[in-house]
Amino acid sequence: MKLLEDRIRQDGKIRSGGVLKVDSFLNHQIDVKLYGEIGKEFHRLFGDCGVTKILTIEASGIGIACVAAQFFDVPVIFAKKNKTKNIAGDVYTSKVESFTHGKVYDIIVAKEFLLPEDRVLIIDDFLANGSALQGLINLVKDAGATVVGAGICIEKAFQPGGDLIRSMGVRVESLAKIKSMTEDSIEFC
Amino acid sequence: MKLLEDRIRQDGKIRSGGVLKVDSFLNHQIDVKLYGEIGKEFHRLFGDCGVTKILTIEASGIGIACVAAQFFDVPVIFAKKNKTKNIAGDVYTSKVESFTHGKVYDIIVAKEFLLPEDRVLIIDDFLANGSALQGLINLVKDAGATVVGAGICIEKAFQPGGDLIRSMGVRVESLAKIKSMTEDSIEFC
Repeated sequence: MKLLEDRIRQDGKIRSGGVLKVDSFLNHQIDVKLYGEIGKEFHRLFGDCGVTKILTIEASGIGIACVAAQFFDVPVIFAKKNKTKNIAGDVYTSKVESFTHGKVYDIIVAKEFLLPEDRVLIIDDFLANGSALQGLINLVKDAGATVVGAGICIEKAFQPGGDLIRSMGVRVESLAKIKSMTEDSIEFC
Repeated sequence: MKLLEDRIRQDGKIRSGGVLKVDSFLNHQIDVKLYGEIGKEFHRLFGDCGVTKILTIEASGIGIACVAAQFFDVPVIFAKKNKTKNIAGDVYTSKVESFTHGKVYDIIVAKEFLLPEDRVLIIDDFLANGSALQGLINLVKDAGATVVGAGICIEKAFQPGGDLIRSMGVRVESLAKIKSMTEDSIEFC
């Protein structure tokens, strides 16, 4: 998606260690018009897949998922990062490794919101190592529901997540796929 | 807002200790059409106030803020709950007490996104004790920006937050104000 690639070139900031900061327009300050165009593009890609729910993970996926869901006219569910020690029996739970924060945490979704007949589109802002996406896929599978695919804003194609998830047979559509980054240049696939 | 009150009556679940669960439509599973109506109502209330930014707090405020921002055509900023010990000097920070989780945490916003000339509408899903809203107001004040008001989905008017914030001279508009709740009834103001 040229609009997103151009915006990343213009306003993204590359930091050492393969870190791309897009917090002026995507995940701290948010350009909602851009979210609208992203939502429209996800709908162009997945609009004919019979999507019944959009699933994302807190926090930065929520806004994108909500704006995109307006085009699909389906509910959003966001998986919560579990903060309490007691997990009630009425949730699906899965583990996600955060490479940024260097820890493993649980994500949860209430069972009542993911049903076996659901056809689920997963939406998130980034795909790098694929741990969050893997965790979300596991939640859907635990519910006996179908993963229609994953709509990702920015994929770091030089990290293993995209290949890993695609090798599982899941359709992954990334609107901007970064082939390589140095501190002063960025190349898209 | 009758639509929201009706939905709370229909799908809200009251738990002991003054807990109202609205996670089937507002803050876990999300009815994005309802978010659209909420956004439209916030725009009706604050559309003539010269709003330049909408500020919210992760996680459940983000979706509402993003959908509402489409009516205002302004960026959203969401304050992050700080998870790392090192706070860089380029953020405004404020403390918020979570009564649900029984702890105090820092919230942060990058200084570059809140400017003295900004006229900020704060949006959140709940107002109870007012600690999150107070923290967000402090961030705006630290930036030298103006708080235009606060748009809240559900105010628990039997808790002190609303009175506290209004007594500070901040305009608070709550779309559903709960006067009292028992386990099988709910009364709106």
